[in-house]
Amino acid sequence: MDLYGYWRSAATYRVRVALNLKGIGVHEIPIDLDKGEQDAPYFRAINPQGAVPALVEPGLPPLTQSLALLEYLEELHPHPALLPADPRGRARVRSLAAGIAADSHPLIVPRVRNYLMQREGFDATRWKAWQTQWFGEGLRTLEARLTTEPGTGKFCHGDMPTFADLCLMSCVIGVRVFKLDIGPTPTVDRIATACDELEAFARAHPKLQAGAPT
Amino acid sequence: MDLYGYWRSAATYRVRVALNLKGIGVHEIPIDLDKGEQDAPYFRAINPQGAVPALVEPGLPPLTQSLALLEYLEELHPHPALLPADPRGRARVRSLAAGIAADSHPLIVPRVRNYLMQREGFDATRWKAWQTQWFGEGLRTLEARLTTEPGTGKFCHGDMPTFADLCLMSCVIGVRVFKLDIGPTPTVDRIATACDELEAFARAHPKLQAGAPT
Repeated sequence: MDLYGYWRSAATYRVRVALNLKGIGVHEIPIDLDKGEQDAPYFRAINPQGAVPALVEPGLPPLTQSLALLEYLEELHPHPALLPADPRGRARVRSLAAGIAADSHPLIVPRVRNYLMQREGFDATRWKAWQTQWFGEGLRTLEARLTTEPGTGKFCHGDMPTFADLCLMSCVIGVRVFKLDIGPTPTVDRIATACDELEAFARAHPKLQAGAPT
Repeated sequence: MDLYGYWRSAATYRVRVALNLKGIGVHEIPIDLDKGEQDAPYFRAINPQGAVPALVEPGLPPLTQSLALLEYLEELHPHPALLPADPRGRARVRSLAAGIAADSHPLIVPRVRNYLMQREGFDATRWKAWQTQWFGEGLRTLEARLTTEPGTGKFCHGDMPTFADLCLMSCVIGVRVFKLDIGPTPTVDRIATACDELEAFARAHPKLQAGAPT
């Protein structure tokens, strides 16, 4: 399988961690988001949205969207499970994941940055305020839920990583890299430390991928 | 079951259509987003994110996030199916759905509007340009996929509605209501007409819900 991704793409990171946890080998092909390679005709033919990740199995159409890819990998390779066994548990994990992957991360991706810079004249300060707002709101909401909901364990749901932890970490890494001041999130931080200690997360880290600055 | 929602909430609409298609009755409780009721302490206790929809079964914690609720309803009430039977088909439908529900709609919700109005001084013209950009990009990407991918049928995937059609319609209704000029999307329009003809979609329409302007 080929995974079209980029070293610093949060959505690619989520899928990379899932592949590592499940022990699935892929060939990762970098699409340089900083050079706008996602808009090149050959990549638009792979994903008309012009976004990574895209997963391609030999001879089959590409599959896209990180949450859809996580579900697909879970169906084909159910062990180790990244969703709980019970429907309400799965609903909780999918909701925690969507709070980051749907309601937080899509606000700070390159196409939004380009619009705000080019059409609204954002400078670095206004962009950082925007990033801080949406990374912060995403992780503070997650913090509120993780500290009050009974399902939380060593990880977001129980004591094994799920889709929710992949999404949590994809956001925490962004906050660390951009040094965003989002206020205290002790439960998120505790779970991030638990993720950091797993080889599957460590090996998927953006800074270790091809193309990352040294 | 109680469904906390709002007449014009696109995310509530998706869940409402799924409930109608599956013949599941719920009691819908309006949360007035225009008055900021989503931020009231009693509702933040139901959903710390301060967003609708939230689904509450008697005596159990609330479940949130429209895509997570669709998956939950599908698991508990699998007939009629709103996901295809094959994993790659499910991956395609989930990807089409996420292109709208994760990458388009979260950019135009009240919390983003509030930020842009209050912190960036957006007026109605700049807000309409923003809406047009993200509704347009979401539906044009969907159009590109629907016209080129072999899975498309009478609906987004085959000849029965799926999660993807719920998401498509939640966006199309916004474009119609706000009279946004997003360019031609003939395949999206054809599928929207097919959805319009189904009673489950018609009955879920925002304008027919409690609180909608007459």
